[in-house]
Amino acid sequence: MDIAMIGLGKMGANMAERLHRGGHRVIGVDPGEAARDSAATRGFEVSASIADALAQLPVPRVVWLMVPAGEVVDQTLAALSPHLSEGDVVIDGGNSYYKDSMRRAEQVKGEDVSYIDCGTSGGVWGLQEGYSLMIGGETAAVERVGAIFRTLAPGEDRGWAHVGPSGAGHFCKMVHNGIEYGMMQAYAEGFALMQHKTAFNLDLAQVAKAWQHGSVVRSWLLDLSADALDRNPQLDGIAPYVEDSGEGRWTVAEAIDLDVPAPVITLSLLERLRSREKNSFSDRLLAAMRNEFGGHAIKTR
Amino acid sequence: MDIAMIGLGKMGANMAERLHRGGHRVIGVDPGEAARDSAATRGFEVSASIADALAQLPVPRVVWLMVPAGEVVDQTLAALSPHLSEGDVVIDGGNSYYKDSMRRAEQVKGEDVSYIDCGTSGGVWGLQEGYSLMIGGETAAVERVGAIFRTLAPGEDRGWAHVGPSGAGHFCKMVHNGIEYGMMQAYAEGFALMQHKTAFNLDLAQVAKAWQHGSVVRSWLLDLSADALDRNPQLDGIAPYVEDSGEGRWTVAEAIDLDVPAPVITLSLLERLRSREKNSFSDRLLAAMRNEFGGHAIKTR
Amino acid sequence: MDIAMIGLGKMGANMAERLHRGGHRVIGVDPGEAARDSAATRGFEVSASIADALAQLPVPRVVWLMVPAGEVVDQTLAALSPHLSEGDVVIDGGNSYYKDSMRRAEQVKGEDVSYIDCGTSGGVWGLQEGYSLMIGGETAAVERVGAIFRTLAPGEDRGWAHVGPSGAGHFCKMVHNGIEYGMMQAYAEGFALMQHKTAFNLDLAQVAKAWQHGSVVRSWLLDLSADALDRNPQLDGIAPYVEDSGEGRWTVAEAIDLDVPAPVITLSLLERLRSREKNSFSDRLLAAMRNEFGGHAIKTR
Amino acid sequence: MDIAMIGLGKMGANMAERLHRGGHRVIGVDPGEAARDSAATRGFEVSASIADALAQLPVPRVVWLMVPAGEVVDQTLAALSPHLSEGDVVIDGGNSYYKDSMRRAEQVKGEDVSYIDCGTSGGVWGLQEGYSLMIGGETAAVERVGAIFRTLAPGEDRGWAHVGPSGAGHFCKMVHNGIEYGMMQAYAEGFALMQHKTAFNLDLAQVAKAWQHGSVVRSWLLDLSADALDRNPQLDGIAPYVEDSGEGRWTVAEAIDLDVPAPVITLSLLERLRSREKNSFSDRLLAAMRNEFGGHAIKTR
Repeated sequence: MDIAMIGLGKMGANMAERLHRGGHRVIGVDPGEAARDSAATRGFEVSASIADALAQLPVPRVVWLMVPAGEVVDQTLAALSPHLSEGDVVIDGGNSYYKDSMRRAEQVKGEDVSYIDCGTSGGVWGLQEGYSLMIGGETAAVERVGAIFRTLAPGEDRGWAHVGPSGAGHFCKMVHNGIEYGMMQAYAEGFALMQHKTAFNLDLAQVAKAWQHGSVVRSWLLDLSADALDRNPQLDGIAPYVEDSGEGRWTVAEAIDLDVPAPVITLSLLERLRSREKNSFSDRLLAAMRNEFGGHAIKTR
Repeated sequence: MDIAMIGLGKMGANMAERLHRGGHRVIGVDPGEAARDSAATRGFEVSASIADALAQLPVPRVVWLMVPAGEVVDQTLAALSPHLSEGDVVIDGGNSYYKDSMRRAEQVKGEDVSYIDCGTSGGVWGLQEGYSLMIGGETAAVERVGAIFRTLAPGEDRGWAHVGPSGAGHFCKMVHNGIEYGMMQAYAEGFALMQHKTAFNLDLAQVAKAWQHGSVVRSWLLDLSADALDRNPQLDGIAPYVEDSGEGRWTVAEAIDLDVPAPVITLSLLERLRSREKNSFSDRLLAAMRNEFGGHAIKTR
Repeated sequence: MDIAMIGLGKMGANMAERLHRGGHRVIGVDPGEAARDSAATRGFEVSASIADALAQLPVPRVVWLMVPAGEVVDQTLAALSPHLSEGDVVIDGGNSYYKDSMRRAEQVKGEDVSYIDCGTSGGVWGLQEGYSLMIGGETAAVERVGAIFRTLAPGEDRGWAHVGPSGAGHFCKMVHNGIEYGMMQAYAEGFALMQHKTAFNLDLAQVAKAWQHGSVVRSWLLDLSADALDRNPQLDGIAPYVEDSGEGRWTVAEAIDLDVPAPVITLSLLERLRSREKNSFSDRLLAAMRNEFGGHAIKTR
Repeated sequence: MDIAMIGLGKMGANMAERLHRGGHRVIGVDPGEAARDSAATRGFEVSASIADALAQLPVPRVVWLMVPAGEVVDQTLAALSPHLSEGDVVIDGGNSYYKDSMRRAEQVKGEDVSYIDCGTSGGVWGLQEGYSLMIGGETAAVERVGAIFRTLAPGEDRGWAHVGPSGAGHFCKMVHNGIEYGMMQAYAEGFALMQHKTAFNLDLAQVAKAWQHGSVVRSWLLDLSADALDRNPQLDGIAPYVEDSGEGRWTVAEAIDLDVPAPVITLSLLERLRSREKNSFSDRLLAAMRNEFGGHAIKTR
């Protein structure tokens, strides 16, 4: 198929290349010169202009958005809008909030454009291994661009699914990331515990590798942990500072909204917030209270 | 009554003074000269020697232990033992583990000595306000030293109770402290949230004081927080470092042992551990994993 | 002062009565006949009509809203609006979301009406003991109705505070309720642990009462627990089903929004959700997984 | 090699068969007739008597224990002891507490017998796929029985490791299971959230399968979840009741002992306790408190 890939960041450029390798004609679009220059070596066509790229696509057009979630998606959609026509399909493959995707689908529907929300997992490894795709939207539109999904996914019939109506794809991706937080935290706690058991002087990479085959906890995240620990056993030079990118927060909010207790996913998010705290006010108040009632010494910095 | 108070630390000296003020004859015992010198100004008798102190008490004797939990209690009991005789009553008013108290009661029973475990709450304020006492042991022994409890407690019939057999007193004190952890953490989180709401520029001491009267969250811990925030609104110079003294750990272990989920008390303990962590290995592993799968930048220190 | 109290539910009727007892002229307004009939015995005037009530008040008027949070507040404000004039003061004493209160204050400002958000704590006990009041809004308006606050509060200068601009009052009330959740959960876990320690056969009401005086965990919530346990030691006939009324959810969302980890408050909310779950899907999936990997027996209902 | 497998339960019988298939001579020992009868069809030799089995093995002997953790291990070791001689190797492949294993290793050392603690993961799938083995003990002994480990493991050099001295193997298995609890809980919460999002009518097995390839959360536990959800999409007939087998408790205790905060692993255990609670006392007390302060209705059963 012919497709425009809007956004040539880490994810977009890799996906464009995978589609290009898979035999599709891809026009990558990015306003940034550096992003375009870097993409130019990957084989697919590159353009600085949405108008220009869309003019080159046969109608009905297929456009994939791979831009940061939030306002940028709305801005990109606004820039796209004058160039779209009846029957075009726009796929948002980023980490958009599922309710935004539902709103956007409704918005372009007036112009007879189909909007597909596609949760995309796989990170920098997707180029080689393929991406896991969770797809929401109308069946006819999803079927029309099926060839794209089959190429991006790890296999023709593997690693992708049309999970439901508009919003359902990004919803599943949101939950996916919530689960990811919980799994990562579980591993992190376990390895930290082994690291603190100094009496056994454990080689954490060795343990991780022993678990990679046959164990109940084997997983891709374990594979990555084994690699990281192998290269840097004490994780030297890495700050204990963990970012979060939004999906965890949405998962927590959604769970509470649906009255579903999700304590482990929730706590995994809070631990990330905690990792970024400096001079915690709550800890200082606890120390102050202990001093008030028990005369317990306060540590000054 | 006549009583020996073994251990003239912050708690023991105050309790000895409250008993002395209440009309009891108190002989305070401490091997430390500084502790004895400081106690000497408080009105009650002071001795460096357990043997000497016990020799001065009428039989049957009443001995109160106010020493650090753990080995020191066993050592003190061993030192006491040769000087005890049938009918004596030994009261452990410290923060001993309740199973240790049960073992010790069994141990001295062979010598016809009664052992009472008395959980004591109130901190440095107990001297003036009285102590809340949770008492475990045989009824006859508890009744024999009732005058002591009535003087230490905030009132004749208030703030003390014979809650059960040997061990029950320290068990209740253990749970008391577990609850204390949870309450403290709840306040700490709430005040931290208000402190971070910079748009409202809240005066935390003012809010705390408004809550002291009529609100659902009024409590003594709130009173102490109000005082601390009044004197030092930003808690300047206090390190975000929170000690724990053992009872929280025992509470968590006991709850799991009895299959009782106590998530908030448990998490309050873990937050204290977290406050003391430097360069968390688990957070570093999380950052490393994010880098592995998503190429997300790692923060170096 | 003269004041209209809109909403004569449990809280509104009590507050109207306290104001009436305090020497103010109160016109209670409620569309419900039963609520009006019940209120009629309390001494203050009662009306079915907002228009009628406001017509009887001297200008500038003082109106207190004590209606359920959410749409009802907006509806009531819309009903009030035609009858308000420059200089009137409207006070929302309910559990409104603080951002709604900020919006409403902005809304009536155009009509030169002052809007005060007043977080009110104290429950059914406020009639006798007074209410803890956290007040947000412009200083001039707050001062104008100071006599009202002083009467509702537990004392002239106690239990109330003008904590900040519009929204700040309901914000503090929201955090107050978050803290309340955490404290309640801490007590609940502790008492449950003692209840499960059958070997000691503890009398929970007795323990609670011993803690009411002198202990670190004394509080009003403990007083209430002591009463409840005294009347019904095994809490017979009470379902393990815990409602939540919104403020806890807002507190959790706000904490995450401000990057403030509040694990204990958060978990206290999730425990309430958990208490209401029937046939938990997550627990069933856990059981299914254990069966898959270990052949562990699954319990059927 | 020649080896006695003591304990022909689900795990032991499978491991004996895998060793037998791998070319080793295996004598399976179990006091239970049913276990022996069932094992007899699997190809390896079977005996009811430890003495008999050990008499048939060439010296130095190799004995694998696959019996329930705790007292049974000590009893089995006591039964073995008279038949062991210098140079024999005993391997405990069960889920023993690592400190017990250290004690037992010390105990048999006096008789010049080597004791190896081998954490074994893989469940009922290990027969076909091989077991992940975490091995603690002295290097010479581990090397002597290396052929056994290589056959049980998924591959010659994969899925097994000599991780450290005596105790280290069971320590790593303990942590492994703690991580397992956390991962399982993360998946369970995520799938429960999707199940409650009725508007999207998600097919959970379909989502799980889409995640199996290319996604960040792919894992063996996910594979098992996909199977379970495929066969029984609503998990009908499964009670929301989750057992725990000890390692989670030990992990939580160890983490607290080492001052390592492990909130997610800890909470995952507590959620299992919660799943088994009937008529939660803490929830009832919370409901009672709400009634006390707010007059909120109590739900009766």
